[in-house]
Amino acid sequence: MKDGKVAVAIIGCGGMGGGHAIAIGTGTGNAVWNATNLKQATADLDPLTTDISKKLVLAGVYDIKPERNEWAAGFGFHVYKDYEDMLADPEVDVILVATPNHLHKEMAIQAMRAGKHVLCEKPVMMSSADLVDVMKVAEETGKIFYPRQNRRWDKDYLIVKKIYDEKLLGNTYNIECRIHGSRGIPGDWRGVKAYGGGMMLDWGVHIIDRILVMVPEKVKKVFCTMTHITNDECDDGFRLQLTFESGLIVLLEVGTCNFINLPLWYVTGNEGTAVINSWANDGKMVRLMSWEDKDATPILAGEGLTKTMAPRQGKSVEELPLPEVHYDSNELYSNVADVVLGKAEQIVKPEQALRVLRLMEACFESDEKGIVVNFE
Amino acid sequence: MKDGKVAVAIIGCGGMGGGHAIAIGTGTGNAVWNATNLKQATADLDPLTTDISKKLVLAGVYDIKPERNEWAAGFGFHVYKDYEDMLADPEVDVILVATPNHLHKEMAIQAMRAGKHVLCEKPVMMSSADLVDVMKVAEETGKIFYPRQNRRWDKDYLIVKKIYDEKLLGNTYNIECRIHGSRGIPGDWRGVKAYGGGMMLDWGVHIIDRILVMVPEKVKKVFCTMTHITNDECDDGFRLQLTFESGLIVLLEVGTCNFINLPLWYVTGNEGTAVINSWANDGKMVRLMSWEDKDATPILAGEGLTKTMAPRQGKSVEELPLPEVHYDSNELYSNVADVVLGKAEQIVKPEQALRVLRLMEACFESDEKGIVVNFE
Repeated sequence: MKDGKVAVAIIGCGGMGGGHAIAIGTGTGNAVWNATNLKQATADLDPLTTDISKKLVLAGVYDIKPERNEWAAGFGFHVYKDYEDMLADPEVDVILVATPNHLHKEMAIQAMRAGKHVLCEKPVMMSSADLVDVMKVAEETGKIFYPRQNRRWDKDYLIVKKIYDEKLLGNTYNIECRIHGSRGIPGDWRGVKAYGGGMMLDWGVHIIDRILVMVPEKVKKVFCTMTHITNDECDDGFRLQLTFESGLIVLLEVGTCNFINLPLWYVTGNEGTAVINSWANDGKMVRLMSWEDKDATPILAGEGLTKTMAPRQGKSVEELPLPEVHYDSNELYSNVADVVLGKAEQIVKPEQALRVLRLMEACFESDEKGIVVNFE
Repeated sequence: MKDGKVAVAIIGCGGMGGGHAIAIGTGTGNAVWNATNLKQATADLDPLTTDISKKLVLAGVYDIKPERNEWAAGFGFHVYKDYEDMLADPEVDVILVATPNHLHKEMAIQAMRAGKHVLCEKPVMMSSADLVDVMKVAEETGKIFYPRQNRRWDKDYLIVKKIYDEKLLGNTYNIECRIHGSRGIPGDWRGVKAYGGGMMLDWGVHIIDRILVMVPEKVKKVFCTMTHITNDECDDGFRLQLTFESGLIVLLEVGTCNFINLPLWYVTGNEGTAVINSWANDGKMVRLMSWEDKDATPILAGEGLTKTMAPRQGKSVEELPLPEVHYDSNELYSNVADVVLGKAEQIVKPEQALRVLRLMEACFESDEKGIVVNFE
């Protein structure tokens, strides 16, 4: 504790660690991953957003690259001599692990054994077996292991969650989410298998986590195909189809060789369809008003006319804006502080991260063997 | 033969049979499925289109519903007393079978045994076993059995075929085609399993046929999930993923409870992406000019910034119109006449229809068992 606030020290100060350093160090909080984008990133924060400068304080950072430590020092942040130095600081409550993925396990266990709680970047571990080990250490030491699944607070996701929860399209029978880029895998450790590279571990972990939170059902079937367009070693994209117990189908896709994007979300229910085109949350819902629509005019479709596929006209459907959502962009940071102080339950639980890791392992198995994996 | 032209008689004069009656009876040819839409349907015909009035003549029609025969008579078309009467007409060369699907087999065999060639609506048979039987009769009788897979001449498909054939996006690694409507299954025999209803047999047969013609490879894996939103008995839609021998993945989807459409085609290659939004063939290609693009500015994506998914800017990509295609909209009708006269090979072959039927059977198996079916 420092000045009555929960003190966080960050191990690994690259892209993500640096973002956390600014977010906590300046007190601006989430959605701040680049000092030069501070304005852009904070402009759209919901009024519900917690002021984390009242709950968290940055104790300091450490990175194995001297230039990253210099970068942090430039902001006036304290830089530890090494990881041992950080762990030895009695003021530090939480170690935020933001190293490459393959080091998460070692860093987390070391931290908990040194009496620190852990907030760990995603994917929290390289495998579900590693996470089981880490969860044992958390239990032994009585320390918190908190997976940072921040994308549960993405606005686009929360809009879809509201559509699903409130049955705004009737019974949702199909949900599709696509993350499309055209730059391949970033050219650092993210393209190396041994370091936990590849798009399944990078983006898959987010979009799977969100869906598992949203749909309170067992996943029965997992079918996944991965791409290797720009990288032989790691998957540079995937298409994953989940079949839930109720028959709900969810299609999750990540691509890094897509020069035109398909919509970010596409959701269909028995009474309507919703689309979110991009992260700007532009989109709409079209809802069924009456199944009857006598005015169907066949349309020319290629070399034939079709009435079946003719769009509805007039009053049998209505177009609506996407629902409004309000949320606390800093809820994850805030919850970490509250959990440390014994004031709240963890929102993101290690068991949830374990389920996501197991599901990602099922994806790799499905892709490798070309089969549907029976999951739960 | 009649007036030196190949004479066609149509058994079944409903939606499709009636369209054929007008197409052949008026000599206007393909893309004419509704008298009131004659103008719309013929407006966009390619100049390459054959004048089929010089090759084919309508001998007459017969339907079990008196009102359909009256409808045909209203156009001045000859109406047979019954099917036997039609088969007994020595002038008739080709019986065009346009009955509900479950009657195709009986009608086709009867026609060939009566010495007539057969042009058969799709799906040509209810099962691959039925088609094997019919192909044996064709061999025994020396008659032609011609599957009417007219959607090989859809302009949107031919644009994609050109992109694939000429590698306009580099190596194509993924092709997606979606046929979306919101009216459920048409409310006649098409919703009844015993009559060959459901969207797999109705639209699946077209979009599978086209892909198998386009991609000269074995299909290794078939994964299909079907929907039953508006109809318990028959599939009212499906999502099918094919994995070809080279690793090329093709996603084919039909939906009849989609109130907003996703693009008709979405094609990705290692050097670009193409989209065709609708049957109006509006769309574009974006092609990679240089993999390097140093100017990437991270974009705000939900609760984080991403450089990986930031769109490319400036000169690293170029936007192009879809390629032009030219083709004969009446080529199938024209080819039927030429084949009957011994002047040409069949473009649409029974063995191709057999492969499509077998693949559709693999789809039903995949959906029923929830497995990937190893196909060829």
